[in-house]
Amino acid sequence: MRIPKKLLSGLQKEDCFLIATHINPDGDAIGSSLALGEALESVGKKIFLYDRDPVPRYYRFLPGHRKFSTDLKKALKADATLILLDCNSPERAALGAVSFRKTIVIDHHETERDFGDIRWVERDAAATGMLINALIPALDLKITPSMATNLYTAIAVDTGTFRYSNTTAEVLHAAAELVRAGAEPNRISEHLYETWDYGRFRLFLMVMNTLEKKDGVAIVHVTAAMFRETGTAAEDTENFANLPRSINEVKVSALFRETGSGEWKASLRSKGAANVARIAEQFGGGGHRNAAGFRIKGDFDTVKKTLLKALKKTLG
Amino acid sequence: MRIPKKLLSGLQKEDCFLIATHINPDGDAIGSSLALGEALESVGKKIFLYDRDPVPRYYRFLPGHRKFSTDLKKALKADATLILLDCNSPERAALGAVSFRKTIVIDHHETERDFGDIRWVERDAAATGMLINALIPALDLKITPSMATNLYTAIAVDTGTFRYSNTTAEVLHAAAELVRAGAEPNRISEHLYETWDYGRFRLFLMVMNTLEKKDGVAIVHVTAAMFRETGTAAEDTENFANLPRSINEVKVSALFRETGSGEWKASLRSKGAANVARIAEQFGGGGHRNAAGFRIKGDFDTVKKTLLKALKKTLG
Repeated sequence: MRIPKKLLSGLQKEDCFLIATHINPDGDAIGSSLALGEALESVGKKIFLYDRDPVPRYYRFLPGHRKFSTDLKKALKADATLILLDCNSPERAALGAVSFRKTIVIDHHETERDFGDIRWVERDAAATGMLINALIPALDLKITPSMATNLYTAIAVDTGTFRYSNTTAEVLHAAAELVRAGAEPNRISEHLYETWDYGRFRLFLMVMNTLEKKDGVAIVHVTAAMFRETGTAAEDTENFANLPRSINEVKVSALFRETGSGEWKASLRSKGAANVARIAEQFGGGGHRNAAGFRIKGDFDTVKKTLLKALKKTLG
Repeated sequence: MRIPKKLLSGLQKEDCFLIATHINPDGDAIGSSLALGEALESVGKKIFLYDRDPVPRYYRFLPGHRKFSTDLKKALKADATLILLDCNSPERAALGAVSFRKTIVIDHHETERDFGDIRWVERDAAATGMLINALIPALDLKITPSMATNLYTAIAVDTGTFRYSNTTAEVLHAAAELVRAGAEPNRISEHLYETWDYGRFRLFLMVMNTLEKKDGVAIVHVTAAMFRETGTAAEDTENFANLPRSINEVKVSALFRETGSGEWKASLRSKGAANVARIAEQFGGGGHRNAAGFRIKGDFDTVKKTLLKALKKTLG
């Protein structure tokens, strides 16, 4: 990883930043934004943190999460420089209709678009958190315990807590240093994985009971009725596609979530070489090799067949 | 961690070793044994690897696992020096009735007994794998890719793949170095967590459907009939107690597994400060602060109530 000099000077020169990240933000998006925000604030910069969506419940243990706003007005009024984090097109951050005097992109996603006056995209990095973890010391700033917690979470979430194929020696080494800087792996993991509402547990069993398995693909689905019955919401289905993927003969798992009448959000998970980002892109979505998603309309049987067909064609 | 000089000289002086580990061996027991065995073999020592029980299916990807035997005869005939690994009493390894000319103990368990001519017990180490990872270089030997895979697995299993409270900076740093030495985190995690037979998946749903929750304790159970119906066995229930522990109000989870008519094996998992090793010891079992187990006789309702009472008394 090589940090562009233009990025360092841009961050040093400007005084006011809007850090914005993708819609439906995950731990990498939020943790990276909070850590960079705190770092820049510590040298007197004015920082706004924006996401179209509120910080999901599971990430509300992250230090500073209340700085996130779903309102842009103040940042626009202050003529802030945009820093797009963990995504590389303004559309992914619901900022397609807004224009900025100056724009910076810091990201690690495969699907790269040509946006940003200053761009730092490391497609091989496990998480945007890895970039911010390198950037802060390069700005001659110290990683505080709260930055360490945010960055450890960012990296943990995007590597399945060191289980996915992007878990390199560099990732584990960074994690070790973040623990030295104050991150607590057990506390973070408990927040990420061990804070299930009982309703979520019940929903999980319901969803797993819908499992259908065919040709190395496992499909589960969750309906609006299931959410109602268990008092849960979309964010409660995070990682639900992981267990079906764990079944031996399964190469790809999909969770279809009903988002409206005849409207579905599909979350794909794969193991080994199967690249589900390529599948998601065919339906206008995106993501990573082993975790991606897209939206699709139709009755459940039709959308299921559409996906199975695309998987068969692409993955063989 | 400080390696006793007596241990280094003992390993260098003797020529023939029986490496034995606890019954129902886990990844730390097996991985540590295989790594130490390979290291000692590389300098011409004769090595026997023993466990009363066969290597569980999930660990049969570990390099050299076929060297494990459930037969002691050859080792006894060769008058091998005993190295008791990942436990510290011969009874835990089903060797209570056997006597050895010389005995060595290398372990990290809390429940310590006074056995062994040479003893190295590090109660604060996350895994016996951490000890072996320090011991091999101290013997002036290089960690090979196969040793790295075995040690990474050992450490991963005993730290919940870096989620438990024993996940220190040292643990993550060791993991990073083991990746540099050839361990593949994703491949290992897939073997550990993503190789569910479909029968196991069905068993998991059945067991989770038995959940009973009271006063911060979640109890699930698995009967012989469930095993029969899904074509599964005891080893398939590994980690089943983890999900119930993840429910917000739950401090301790227990999985009761029917081992015979009116006979149960209880696996306890806790989060935070609740020390379940203390509970397990009351019933003649043992383990770690956040993961322990014991055996108990009686009908299910009675053993359940007995546990709940002990938990209430000890944990308040």
